[in-house]
Amino acid sequence: MADRSRIQCKAVADKVVSAEEAAAFISPGDRLGMSGFTGSGHPKAVPAALVRRAVEAAGRGDHFAVSVWTVSTAPELGGALAAVDGIDLRMPYQSDPVTRAKINDGLLGYLDVHLSHVAQMVREGFFGHLDVAVVEVAGVTADGALVPSSSVGNNNTWIDMADRVILEVNSWQPAELEGMHDIYYGAALPPDRKPLQILVPSDRIGVPYLRCPQGKIIAVVETNDPDYPAPSKPADSDSQLIAGHLLDFLSHESGRGRLPATLLPLQSGVGNVPSAVLAAFDSGPFRPLTAYTEVVQDGMLQLLRSGTMTMASTTAFSLTEEGIAELRANIGIYRDRIILRPQEISNHPEVIRRLGCLAMNGMIEADIYGNVNSSHIMGSSICNGIGGSGDFARNAHVAMFLTPSTARNGAISCIVPMVSHVDHTEHDVHVIVTEQGIADLRGLPPALRARQIINNCAHPDYRPALQDYLNRASATGPGKHTPHLLSEALSWHVRYLHEGTMRPA
Amino acid sequence: MADRSRIQCKAVADKVVSAEEAAAFISPGDRLGMSGFTGSGHPKAVPAALVRRAVEAAGRGDHFAVSVWTVSTAPELGGALAAVDGIDLRMPYQSDPVTRAKINDGLLGYLDVHLSHVAQMVREGFFGHLDVAVVEVAGVTADGALVPSSSVGNNNTWIDMADRVILEVNSWQPAELEGMHDIYYGAALPPDRKPLQILVPSDRIGVPYLRCPQGKIIAVVETNDPDYPAPSKPADSDSQLIAGHLLDFLSHESGRGRLPATLLPLQSGVGNVPSAVLAAFDSGPFRPLTAYTEVVQDGMLQLLRSGTMTMASTTAFSLTEEGIAELRANIGIYRDRIILRPQEISNHPEVIRRLGCLAMNGMIEADIYGNVNSSHIMGSSICNGIGGSGDFARNAHVAMFLTPSTARNGAISCIVPMVSHVDHTEHDVHVIVTEQGIADLRGLPPALRARQIINNCAHPDYRPALQDYLNRASATGPGKHTPHLLSEALSWHVRYLHEGTMRPA
Repeated sequence: MADRSRIQCKAVADKVVSAEEAAAFISPGDRLGMSGFTGSGHPKAVPAALVRRAVEAAGRGDHFAVSVWTVSTAPELGGALAAVDGIDLRMPYQSDPVTRAKINDGLLGYLDVHLSHVAQMVREGFFGHLDVAVVEVAGVTADGALVPSSSVGNNNTWIDMADRVILEVNSWQPAELEGMHDIYYGAALPPDRKPLQILVPSDRIGVPYLRCPQGKIIAVVETNDPDYPAPSKPADSDSQLIAGHLLDFLSHESGRGRLPATLLPLQSGVGNVPSAVLAAFDSGPFRPLTAYTEVVQDGMLQLLRSGTMTMASTTAFSLTEEGIAELRANIGIYRDRIILRPQEISNHPEVIRRLGCLAMNGMIEADIYGNVNSSHIMGSSICNGIGGSGDFARNAHVAMFLTPSTARNGAISCIVPMVSHVDHTEHDVHVIVTEQGIADLRGLPPALRARQIINNCAHPDYRPALQDYLNRASATGPGKHTPHLLSEALSWHVRYLHEGTMRPA
Repeated sequence: MADRSRIQCKAVADKVVSAEEAAAFISPGDRLGMSGFTGSGHPKAVPAALVRRAVEAAGRGDHFAVSVWTVSTAPELGGALAAVDGIDLRMPYQSDPVTRAKINDGLLGYLDVHLSHVAQMVREGFFGHLDVAVVEVAGVTADGALVPSSSVGNNNTWIDMADRVILEVNSWQPAELEGMHDIYYGAALPPDRKPLQILVPSDRIGVPYLRCPQGKIIAVVETNDPDYPAPSKPADSDSQLIAGHLLDFLSHESGRGRLPATLLPLQSGVGNVPSAVLAAFDSGPFRPLTAYTEVVQDGMLQLLRSGTMTMASTTAFSLTEEGIAELRANIGIYRDRIILRPQEISNHPEVIRRLGCLAMNGMIEADIYGNVNSSHIMGSSICNGIGGSGDFARNAHVAMFLTPSTARNGAISCIVPMVSHVDHTEHDVHVIVTEQGIADLRGLPPALRARQIINNCAHPDYRPALQDYLNRASATGPGKHTPHLLSEALSWHVRYLHEGTMRPA
């Protein structure tokens, strides 16, 4: 049930309409900035109404499609709309299966943009004019300030830059969200930018509310619908091994005085492996911890609940059903330990570099020289997108990338001679961890990096072939700095595409 | 002739010795942090003495080699020492032919590190302990403060982190350098970092001198030797065409209100093409300009002299013989228009992002999707190194990469299906410029980027083959987001290695 008390401002309440009426304000071809970051905080009603419009248009032999700018991965938003060919262009992140399939079938254009770059590039007009912002909020105060929802993402930018704004006021979102956010309104374009005065993750530099001129709000829709839960998978043995290697490494670094005993602010990307790693910190020696990250997953909630972690700065929740229930049941505990910021700030290079984040991100594959592919399957098909991994890795104190050493029951080696797509270059990757072990690449020239990665990280089934490639490339390749045999550098991927396995015949 | 008046501090003057005596303090296997950035500010005497030691050791059947950390590209330093196998490991940048050849022959380990990352990684101990700093200065004040030379680079870090310091006091350097530098001593490790209060290129946040505890100085050598001049090549027609395209683009951006009429602080990488582009600004419509960059080349000197540019922040000069003569003749004009900073600050992501630099860097090749290779020839052989191009491109307002469309008299296409090495990913490259034209990649999904790059930037001789690759990859490749045929993605490079040309048979 919608909860009218969530809209305390009469001028806003007067604009309440149905989702269909709101969606009618959107024209084919419009560029829409939608709220949502991973599964949280996306609009629940207007996207469904747009889906119905697209279906109706198709029934008339017409076509209804829009550009969708959002970090939401909820299938009920992007996937449902993509399924009815209702999206022309999507950016800057996605991960639902329907959207992904449409992109890889060439039916949907996709821009894969560093999350910290999105807001400034939109403000600069690099992606064209934004027509409509469709933003979920948790409430509206008496003076018209907007209580942000369970993610901030680019909402402040969408609202600022769009001609018109449609609000969804979702009374399912906890009222206690009010006050948890820190919305920074100083992010001017150059030459007018000022330093961001965040010196520790708990620093606040903004205000708890989103602002929107009344005149921009063209429709308000009331909803009472849950966020989209992340899939809940128990941590498998690979994840636990990865977590163990990673904690050993951090202990070693701390023991050598290269990290404080409380470490440095953690960043942990989306995915099963990083989440399992986080949970492992609860039995580790480091405390109190902090996080400066882009998503709070179940593992981090656990750390915050136990007191192992005292403060997490993020732009969104990314929780399983159990995590969502835990947050709702105990939000009184969490509300003082979590700050939600715009993704431009949660992922800002200035702050990440200053704080010295310890960045832990999953990946698809790494090559023997430490180049990392986070986004593409076999060089051509997008998986999710780079997300914030580049923002953090590029500016982190230590940039760590995690993956099981094989995929598809061993048919794919996640350590290859040359990655089929590069998202993080050899210059940006410090540490690679698989269930086999850890490769610390700092201070090593390419040939020594290759030895570490092959011996410590590759699956034993693939080590001989990798070593053989390295040996032959070193002996007969055109240069010995980064020895490669270009005629077979990508042959492992080619073999997989043809034979369904990277295993040598 | 050495000029004793350059050493005003008696305690320092008492340590003056010959270069041989100074070099005797260095042990085989030592890690040396040497001053110098491109051709300027490197030690002139001690490296030559080390060369003699290496030769003498070889004569005895012995081996003398050290690790050299420097951004100097002067052959009399790195090349001469590499030629006698006197270097085990080199970082983080190089460009002299002897060093390059040794690296590519597998005889010399090389770490190719983002210049903004070097100082912090050294302070963190990621490269091991620094034994000796060998730093050229322009003078020593009465109270022992060091007047920095014609480059700053990592000198403050080398001096801070080394056990022992050898100074070269070079009286060839203009005395007027005193006061031009801004050495920041607040660059703590996390969690103790503070915001860098640079809001415009002219802001000063440090002091004009390097500091060094007296007890660390083990030897002082007096020199009177010139910097190593950059090669002087007249701007060729390709460079002029590139400059023209680039100025047209900036005019267009300014006209659309996406750039101020005074633009934003310029960054221009080393190389002939960026230097020619800079010179072209002198007849362009934009003024007054500023620069926040890592090298001041002849083209920028010209802008500063004419008043088109009012202020340049840099870490070094990188001048031809004519440029050096001009600087020395008119340093009174330049000293108020140039600030020399540590490279950690000149290349700092925080400042580059805040100021919104317009980054213009040369490259080796780009692929049809906008990935850029700045460092490797045919995937294996290092050319120079990534230098600061990643620091600037990753955080710039607009990241532009420049190259003629072909190399080796047309045998190499600088636009290829897939680059043989990635230094700047598709996420970080905004604009590509060749003499053929400009591709503005912002807001374009990969397939549309490819169309722009092929049609606007590739040489007409190679366009049909690129288009053919794209067509076939789009039709039959495994995915249509970034269509590739992995079995032939690198075939252009393979053909060049085998046949000496990328041209189709």
